[in-house]
Amino acid sequence: MTTDNIMRGVVIKGSRRVAIQDYAIPVPGVGEVLLEMQASGLCGSDLRAIYRPENPKSEGAEGYRGVIAGHEPCGKIVAIGQNVSPEWKVNDRVVVYHIHGCGSCRECRAGRFISCHSETGREAYGWQRNGGHSDYILTSAADLVRLLEPLSYIDGSVIACGLGTAYAATLRAQISGLDTVLVTGMGPVGLGAALLAQKEGANVYGLEVDPARRQAAEELGIYTLDGASPKVKETIIELTGGYGPSVVIDCSGHPSARLTGLEVAREWARIVFVGEGGSVTFDVSPLVIHKSLTIYGSWVCSISQMESLVENLVKWKLFPEKVVSHVFSVHEAEKAYALFDSGKSGKVIIASEEEAKRWKESK
Amino acid sequence: MTTDNIMRGVVIKGSRRVAIQDYAIPVPGVGEVLLEMQASGLCGSDLRAIYRPENPKSEGAEGYRGVIAGHEPCGKIVAIGQNVSPEWKVNDRVVVYHIHGCGSCRECRAGRFISCHSETGREAYGWQRNGGHSDYILTSAADLVRLLEPLSYIDGSVIACGLGTAYAATLRAQISGLDTVLVTGMGPVGLGAALLAQKEGANVYGLEVDPARRQAAEELGIYTLDGASPKVKETIIELTGGYGPSVVIDCSGHPSARLTGLEVAREWARIVFVGEGGSVTFDVSPLVIHKSLTIYGSWVCSISQMESLVENLVKWKLFPEKVVSHVFSVHEAEKAYALFDSGKSGKVIIASEEEAKRWKESK
Amino acid sequence: MTTDNIMRGVVIKGSRRVAIQDYAIPVPGVGEVLLEMQASGLCGSDLRAIYRPENPKSEGAEGYRGVIAGHEPCGKIVAIGQNVSPEWKVNDRVVVYHIHGCGSCRECRAGRFISCHSETGREAYGWQRNGGHSDYILTSAADLVRLLEPLSYIDGSVIACGLGTAYAATLRAQISGLDTVLVTGMGPVGLGAALLAQKEGANVYGLEVDPARRQAAEELGIYTLDGASPKVKETIIELTGGYGPSVVIDCSGHPSARLTGLEVAREWARIVFVGEGGSVTFDVSPLVIHKSLTIYGSWVCSISQMESLVENLVKWKLFPEKVVSHVFSVHEAEKAYALFDSGKSGKVIIASEEEAKRWKESK
Amino acid sequence: MTTDNIMRGVVIKGSRRVAIQDYAIPVPGVGEVLLEMQASGLCGSDLRAIYRPENPKSEGAEGYRGVIAGHEPCGKIVAIGQNVSPEWKVNDRVVVYHIHGCGSCRECRAGRFISCHSETGREAYGWQRNGGHSDYILTSAADLVRLLEPLSYIDGSVIACGLGTAYAATLRAQISGLDTVLVTGMGPVGLGAALLAQKEGANVYGLEVDPARRQAAEELGIYTLDGASPKVKETIIELTGGYGPSVVIDCSGHPSARLTGLEVAREWARIVFVGEGGSVTFDVSPLVIHKSLTIYGSWVCSISQMESLVENLVKWKLFPEKVVSHVFSVHEAEKAYALFDSGKSGKVIIASEEEAKRWKESK
Repeated sequence: MTTDNIMRGVVIKGSRRVAIQDYAIPVPGVGEVLLEMQASGLCGSDLRAIYRPENPKSEGAEGYRGVIAGHEPCGKIVAIGQNVSPEWKVNDRVVVYHIHGCGSCRECRAGRFISCHSETGREAYGWQRNGGHSDYILTSAADLVRLLEPLSYIDGSVIACGLGTAYAATLRAQISGLDTVLVTGMGPVGLGAALLAQKEGANVYGLEVDPARRQAAEELGIYTLDGASPKVKETIIELTGGYGPSVVIDCSGHPSARLTGLEVAREWARIVFVGEGGSVTFDVSPLVIHKSLTIYGSWVCSISQMESLVENLVKWKLFPEKVVSHVFSVHEAEKAYALFDSGKSGKVIIASEEEAKRWKESK
Repeated sequence: MTTDNIMRGVVIKGSRRVAIQDYAIPVPGVGEVLLEMQASGLCGSDLRAIYRPENPKSEGAEGYRGVIAGHEPCGKIVAIGQNVSPEWKVNDRVVVYHIHGCGSCRECRAGRFISCHSETGREAYGWQRNGGHSDYILTSAADLVRLLEPLSYIDGSVIACGLGTAYAATLRAQISGLDTVLVTGMGPVGLGAALLAQKEGANVYGLEVDPARRQAAEELGIYTLDGASPKVKETIIELTGGYGPSVVIDCSGHPSARLTGLEVAREWARIVFVGEGGSVTFDVSPLVIHKSLTIYGSWVCSISQMESLVENLVKWKLFPEKVVSHVFSVHEAEKAYALFDSGKSGKVIIASEEEAKRWKESK
Repeated sequence: MTTDNIMRGVVIKGSRRVAIQDYAIPVPGVGEVLLEMQASGLCGSDLRAIYRPENPKSEGAEGYRGVIAGHEPCGKIVAIGQNVSPEWKVNDRVVVYHIHGCGSCRECRAGRFISCHSETGREAYGWQRNGGHSDYILTSAADLVRLLEPLSYIDGSVIACGLGTAYAATLRAQISGLDTVLVTGMGPVGLGAALLAQKEGANVYGLEVDPARRQAAEELGIYTLDGASPKVKETIIELTGGYGPSVVIDCSGHPSARLTGLEVAREWARIVFVGEGGSVTFDVSPLVIHKSLTIYGSWVCSISQMESLVENLVKWKLFPEKVVSHVFSVHEAEKAYALFDSGKSGKVIIASEEEAKRWKESK
Repeated sequence: MTTDNIMRGVVIKGSRRVAIQDYAIPVPGVGEVLLEMQASGLCGSDLRAIYRPENPKSEGAEGYRGVIAGHEPCGKIVAIGQNVSPEWKVNDRVVVYHIHGCGSCRECRAGRFISCHSETGREAYGWQRNGGHSDYILTSAADLVRLLEPLSYIDGSVIACGLGTAYAATLRAQISGLDTVLVTGMGPVGLGAALLAQKEGANVYGLEVDPARRQAAEELGIYTLDGASPKVKETIIELTGGYGPSVVIDCSGHPSARLTGLEVAREWARIVFVGEGGSVTFDVSPLVIHKSLTIYGSWVCSISQMESLVENLVKWKLFPEKVVSHVFSVHEAEKAYALFDSGKSGKVIIASEEEAKRWKESK
């Protein structure tokens, strides 16, 4: 795949431009591990923050430093630097947690690198340090999660960001078979939250205005209502035995979907806001006080939650690559981004030839 | 079924003697409701406390006052006294919570009549006030739980004591699809706990020394290990991916089963002790401190938990009458107790002719 | 105080009119208890719902049926009807939980009569059934909470509604000495929440725009900031060691105070909305998702929480009558309402001559 | 204190022998930090595992590899290796979390290095890698917790192991001002747990058989009962208003103290077992099931809990050096261990000359 210690890497240039460049294959230093890349997902946040803008921001948590893109990497260990835990061996299959933290702040100590307090120590793969759209990736051992059999590398790439975020949201609501769950917004995170909530034991309903997304959700076994239907609230109440859902997970980021969630929720329900952006406005007494609701904000998962997710996916025999619609090679990155940007796909992955071949044959 | 305002009632005389006597059908007073009995279960605690002893105790929580037996009543409202909530109407189908509380102590205010602090105000149906082995039962409206369609009266009788106890134990452990649960002791409560834990989302294993109980559990879909097997701990660890179960529910009441539970539990596991009697001895550091375990004691459910159980059984389409092996009429009570005492049956129910007929035809 | 089995009762006529009328002293029926009234508080909701409006609503949870007013009654048992728990004896001192529930719905079974689902069974004292501004009150035994020594009847009246509501809010947030708490809005509920949060172990700050309320809070030992100060957010952050409060309890009901609470809260903080009315609008990502906040709606306490409050007040030696500024007799009810309506008082109580005398001498 | 890049280190030889040896001052490598030692506590586990035995074990979690002793180090950063988080600067004051973990297992990712699953990656300071009884200590940046002003280095040393363990136990029980807490065993961990539970808001009682320890506890403001008194259970019930404590923390490790805790606990109480060693035997029905108890096993704190402890000690103005009775220099290590071994001291610390001087002058 590479020759003469040269590897390819995909760089996003803004204004929907994508370049493929050559890089020297790095050598892992102390605490570092080199992976042969196998699968690297495209995320909606990549489109929003670095692909579509004319001039992507270069500073802050979403700043892009012109590095190799791809913050959902999954691969195989090929070289290990000094002082790496003996837990890691060459040929181990691993998911890369998408953010590297300083390791010394309170949030990092709890494994929540997303919330790392250090301005200089925190780096997202694919945005502030080289990411996964490449033949190899240099990682910190602290950021690796073991990919258990029989999960595939593409499964691992789906886990690395979006499914981890969905998982954290379901954990925040402590979902079980006692619950009836409404997921508002059936994009990748919503789809993941719905599939996970089912495995956690709940009856799950989706709510989505886009017909293509509704159909995709239905094909994955999620009964999904049309968010634009005028009688949707009555329908939800009826489907939930007259009570309303005991859990609502908003993955839409839309004020009106959030409000609908608060309105249909039963007494003592838990509401999780995980879909980013926008605002929400609601009447406090009837919706929140008199129904004794709990509203949780949930960001991405911690690294120990990601480990727990991997373990549970194996137990549940839930293989998240089923949300993937297209797999491309590194040299097809431009095509991959254009397709994903068109909204006419499910999850899109850049993969090694071997992993792409396996995926195509498994369809 | 009755004539001239006379009803039959079953009285237990100790030393395995059972009598059927005539009583005037009572008239409900203020706050009271008369039910036509439809199904009334036999409970292991009846055998232990009032059927087998030569002279059953007459004092205390398990004291028997010579009343009509049966503390798992389920029936239909036929008459309503004054000052009863308008929620209750003639022909409503109801489960009777098996203990009447004083209504004024802290425990009663939380719906936990089992723990009622009043020495005179607390009365168990079938032990200190007339119970369900009869044609009619006089109840307090405060003790009724609505039986939702399509649950049967026999379902309701199973709920009234044993399944409610099993449900409380699963709630204490906050079981979900994240969990792998080991239930030790597959008697009626253990069977119920296992079925409920499955519906709450968990992978469930049973542990039982008695072959007949193991077979009954297997027929209900619970993978059940032989508790007498010398390698049973290794098998449990292996079945749970090398981790051990995240939840153990002891329904056996045996010291050795409790210890096995503590030994195989994974780090941070929750252990519930619900099976009554006996003791437990364990080394604290390796089993409880270094594994950061939590051990919960769990008694019977509160009345609001019983309502929640009824709602969830409907949602889950879980019909607990499937643990019932034999149904008898009031006049066959002696036979019913003798069979149940022999250990050669599953759950045994005394039912109305109509309900018995429905059950037989449904097999 | 009364002659010939006649008692006085205060009726609110709307448009700030108050009448005192004669009634026959009632005789307790089955499950009922007659109290000699000792203390009966005026609540802000009385002003809003029945004193100020020209035509108070007669229907719904806040409907007024022309009964004797006063929903914060505290008194002494003088007669007991049939079938009342033996826990209650003549001369027992009791607080009346301010709402009578049907006793048969799920919420009542959990002791949350405020949320009673029955349209006909639910009645608030002082609004839909006779309340405490009288010489005697007829109550249901189910609604009584024992007033422990050395709490006074006036303490009990403060507990009956407002302090119970404040207590429920602090329980919802699980406050302890680990917490720094900001209470927004220092009216009676806010003052109570602040005093309770201190006893639960927390460092507490108040936020209030009204100078008189700030001063009252300061006199009770609550460090209270001026909500109108332009730099108040910076001050809160500074006072909390740069972190922001770990708990915010909004007792103001104001959109801007709620928003301030969300803005200053530290990561993983818990926010409780208990102040009624109005709405709230906020940006979801920066305030709730990225800070992983939890927002709880909290209504009034359950009856078992009220019992726990009484027990804890004794343990804490916290005597809530210290928020009371004026005590009047039943025949001075008009004056009492006018003063309370003027906003120039703290908590106002209508009390028996004996209790009023004790209070005045204790000042 | 040192010359020519030579530092002194204390080595324990078993059979109560202590040696002081010279070492080259180490140079921090990648991810490492060199501290000038300021305070290093002696822990009961040092006496048990490496000081008293003739031949201390060399393998396992408590194996001693002949390294510099002292697993409660606190000091000042003097040199920083490569790739250390920019959060750390020369002259920063830091506590060393007493165990270094592999950083790659699930427990390490949650900051619980004590439970690190790696056989080779886990090392306790003072047992498997050089500890704090020295002039300098080489640490991993991952193991450092910032010591906030105005906490002293001796405060920090007390935090590093024992007080952290006590803190974790109080967190497990979620103690607040709602609680009455009984601490059984008033050694260093018990004393710490009692002081922390007070700051968390609770009423706290101690139980201790040793008169000297009782006196020390009383001097620190902990009302402490004689565990050998025949009427001690009745006394506890009486002191807790007839209810029994809502929380019991066993720091004694004794079967009888644990049993007493279960016996006196009120309904729904939480019991924490944190004192190491020995077993416990109890009757399950009356003590655990019918009282609905929860029993938690609690090991040492996680590193993020240690950070939270430091922040809270500052807020509480609780300075743990008040449990220290003697401070020695490195060259007095033999004397320090002999005194501590005699049982005639409180907490014993080896400190720098400067810190020892400050401590003596502050008495």
